Amino acid sequence: MMTDIEIAQKAEMKHIREVAAKLGISEDDLDLYGKYKAKLSDELIKKVEGNENGKLILVTAINPTPAGEGKTTITVGLGEAMGQLGKKAVIALREPSLGPCFGIKGGAAGGGYAQVVPMEDLNLHFTGDFHAITSANNLLAAMMDNHIQQGNALRIDVNRIVFKRCMDMNDRVLRHTVVGLGKRVDGVPREDGFVITVASEIMAILCLASDMKDLQERLGRIIVAYNMDNEPVTAADLKAVGAMAALLKDAIKPNLIQTLEHTPAIVHGGPFANIAHGCNSVMATKTALKLADYVITEAGFGADLGAEKFFDIKCRMNNLKPDAVVLVATVRALKYNGGVAKADLGEENLDALKAGIVNLEKHIENLQKYGVPVVVTLNRFVTDSQAELDFVKKFCEDRDCDFALANVWEQGGKGGIDLANAVLNTLENKKSNFKVLYDDSLSIKDKIDCIATEIYGADGVTYSAEASKAIAKIEEMGFGNFPVCMAKNQYSLSDDPKKLGRPTGFDINIREVYVSAGAGFVVAITGTIMTMPGLPKSPAAERIYVDDDGKIVGLF
Amino acid sequence: MMTDIEIAQKAEMKHIREVAAKLGISEDDLDLYGKYKAKLSDELIKKVEGNENGKLILVTAINPTPAGEGKTTITVGLGEAMGQLGKKAVIALREPSLGPCFGIKGGAAGGGYAQVVPMEDLNLHFTGDFHAITSANNLLAAMMDNHIQQGNALRIDVNRIVFKRCMDMNDRVLRHTVVGLGKRVDGVPREDGFVITVASEIMAILCLASDMKDLQERLGRIIVAYNMDNEPVTAADLKAVGAMAALLKDAIKPNLIQTLEHTPAIVHGGPFANIAHGCNSVMATKTALKLADYVITEAGFGADLGAEKFFDIKCRMNNLKPDAVVLVATVRALKYNGGVAKADLGEENLDALKAGIVNLEKHIENLQKYGVPVVVTLNRFVTDSQAELDFVKKFCEDRDCDFALANVWEQGGKGGIDLANAVLNTLENKKSNFKVLYDDSLSIKDKIDCIATEIYGADGVTYSAEASKAIAKIEEMGFGNFPVCMAKNQYSLSDDPKKLGRPTGFDINIREVYVSAGAGFVVAITGTIMTMPGLPKSPAAERIYVDDDGKIVGLF
Repeated sequence: MMTDIEIAQKAEMKHIREVAAKLGISEDDLDLYGKYKAKLSDELIKKVEGNENGKLILVTAINPTPAGEGKTTITVGLGEAMGQLGKKAVIALREPSLGPCFGIKGGAAGGGYAQVVPMEDLNLHFTGDFHAITSANNLLAAMMDNHIQQGNALRIDVNRIVFKRCMDMNDRVLRHTVVGLGKRVDGVPREDGFVITVASEIMAILCLASDMKDLQERLGRIIVAYNMDNEPVTAADLKAVGAMAALLKDAIKPNLIQTLEHTPAIVHGGPFANIAHGCNSVMATKTALKLADYVITEAGFGADLGAEKFFDIKCRMNNLKPDAVVLVATVRALKYNGGVAKADLGEENLDALKAGIVNLEKHIENLQKYGVPVVVTLNRFVTDSQAELDFVKKFCEDRDCDFALANVWEQGGKGGIDLANAVLNTLENKKSNFKVLYDDSLSIKDKIDCIATEIYGADGVTYSAEASKAIAKIEEMGFGNFPVCMAKNQYSLSDDPKKLGRPTGFDINIREVYVSAGAGFVVAITGTIMTMPGLPKSPAAERIYVDDDGKIVGLF
Repeated sequence: MMTDIEIAQKAEMKHIREVAAKLGISEDDLDLYGKYKAKLSDELIKKVEGNENGKLILVTAINPTPAGEGKTTITVGLGEAMGQLGKKAVIALREPSLGPCFGIKGGAAGGGYAQVVPMEDLNLHFTGDFHAITSANNLLAAMMDNHIQQGNALRIDVNRIVFKRCMDMNDRVLRHTVVGLGKRVDGVPREDGFVITVASEIMAILCLASDMKDLQERLGRIIVAYNMDNEPVTAADLKAVGAMAALLKDAIKPNLIQTLEHTPAIVHGGPFANIAHGCNSVMATKTALKLADYVITEAGFGADLGAEKFFDIKCRMNNLKPDAVVLVATVRALKYNGGVAKADLGEENLDALKAGIVNLEKHIENLQKYGVPVVVTLNRFVTDSQAELDFVKKFCEDRDCDFALANVWEQGGKGGIDLANAVLNTLENKKSNFKVLYDDSLSIKDKIDCIATEIYGADGVTYSAEASKAIAKIEEMGFGNFPVCMAKNQYSLSDDPKKLGRPTGFDINIREVYVSAGAGFVVAITGTIMTMPGLPKSPAAERIYVDDDGKIVGLF
């Protein structure tokens, strides 16, 4: 069996101008980055503004398990299948982060015959968007420390600096640092730390900004620190906005690449799915809706985190109306939720399936609360028994969900035809009555309670003293109307990653709360969230190399 | 009068495929980055390997003064003038660093009507080369700290780590840091620091590597630390080479842009001119020689640093034979060298000119030691008097140098026709007998003595105890045959920046010596060298913004 990168490297890509032509985009409206990548020009985005919107389809999943669900693979395969059915479809994905490629994780470009290419480029520097974000982030940090060094007219309290430097690298030693050591000319010493670039607020901002003007306004609102009177100090106060915007001028333009079957894929932005909202950029989604009849996008982690934030943050802020949701599961993952060990998932086990399917059930119920029709798909494995597949099918249909099997890893678009037809059927026959879960006007605690009880199934919420204090401060600063971005482990509906299935009788414990004023949401943290990963004992980087033909080997 | 960026933004650029066509390059051999930037493909480089070499012309200058010399402007203008004369010429320049754009310094793309464009791109992210170097550098650092964290099998001594993280930013607080604070999982605490990306050894390596294979060998030789037995630990020992090479796969390809007059400009690499060798990449220069009849390149700082390293490091390692040198001066700078205050440089002062021209004299003598014919040019200012110009002209001609005035800032190529004719005349009538200054086989101290006495005009060299010890260790490790890369202030021929003109009766004091084993040279440091700049009180970044038409304002 070939690996993902071998399949990808064997692919005959088309020149990106041909892929663009499928969407009616002329070469003049592309900024080419080599032959297989392009950015969509500002002029194009303006030109298509008046077009009617296509249908917006979100792909999400049950809670992830070590068994693997293949959400991105299904997203790509569904797009390819739409193409095979002669539909004008475009896939809208996030860009992967560079750092994790050198750790354990492989790339994030789908898998098998449902991949976007060129995958090495996508997983390494791509069109430089993340590097631009890193630069803008670190310029702001440098200007802040320079401001302190040069007299600190804004009276920044060095013990209340909240903005961190960033790097797109898994580098644990940068989590907690001291900077500014040395002589007087070497700056004012203080505790500091780095986050990985995707965890930067600037990444979230880039993904939520509707245009360059909105981007600049959001950048200006970033709170970098508090002053001696505990009042916020912003990027605008530091006069950093214009230069940051100059650095992000190209990065805000959506990128166009292709799948292995030459389906257009707009790949843009990649905010963390915990401390941020975890979906691709608004500019990419909006432009995709103007260019195609069907836009297939995805959100990070399971539906409790990814779909909830997609709906309650991204759609809310931008008036997007999703038309259907595809909920991805595997028989293996459902059995894992039912208590089967990873090694035994290949054996038929209907009892475990029945025990574990409650996780799928809860996600179906949750998604239906948003008024969006749900299609369930099983990403098929050879070990799945017919009885298992039949059971899941009936379970979903009993809950008013269309159902389809998918085998896109092995077959590409052909393996997604059934799913595509189920989606088309749903779009035709079921109207979406999309609504967000909670009102802007609720208090922050009421919003958190609403998500915890309605989506996670918690009994209630407890708050640390620090969290309660922070919420009061945030509301006092005037950010009480922001939606909430929950930071929770992705493995369980609860805040305990070990509670699989559909846990009940638990509270959600909010440890820390802060505002991302530029992004426009309040982050509520349960448990410990890692914003700078580390490398494992034997990093993948040790096995990556460039062969004599100039091909990258070992990336996945 | 328009500013440089206004002139640049008003320019009608040609599509880069048209510029490439002038050099016989087809679009298939370009990796486009938008419409006005491209990388030259590996295939093209192979294809032209058998071509005859064009003439190699180095542009260098007297010691820089606050009056400004305009070396890059002359380089660009000379290329444009060659174009006006119908010659097949290409300019080979360094890429500018991003960080300093936000401090005091403007961009580094020439000036007036002798600029390369698109200048905003060039000065910001360009084609991402420096970001790739930053990533490769920081991956190596992360792998080293991870190695220590995961058991430290190589027995790295955390007090003898010599490799630093880097960032392309002016950020003084990163000069001296402590990393690895926090809990056990957050790494092993140690003192650390960042350099600006252009000061990374990887930048020097990228610029000296002849191809991907050579690049990987050089990367492998980077010494990151010494172990408990004081033996070097390399990037190869950390198994980091392949992944670093994967990150640099596109960055090693030369970039093609154009001047305001559409002369092709290959802009690639940008190593520091003090702790590294300060010239553009070998791959760019070699490819340029295969593509054009005249290749015009430059080296950092004045001729004592820039030309010396160009000859003794870059040309030596790569068997390059320069055919002529253009030595740039201004009447103002010569008078400044003669003791005139900056405010009074506009007034005719023949006595000061006579006193200051000794600086030019010494550089002429130095360049002639390399056996390369010298053309002197004065970058003309309106305040220069005819008597002053005549004096300099005669002074140069008496020393067997062709001489020409240049006015390319105001007139573009037209203002460089006289200079181009002088260069063509020199190339036709004077044979270059290029030879390097010293033999590889000399001891490191003899090499340093040779540069100090022959080029700087010093009486001798003194060494700190630490420097002498380091030299002994470097020779013991087997690097005694490397050329020496001098790190000296650029303002004076001596190691005291206040000694202008042609100082005599001084020693050069070597404070510190270390080996850049991957780059392949020994760095000898006089005085204090800043490898991480800071921002000024009022950073240029505060005045940069993106206007409503999406144009960047205030970058220069």
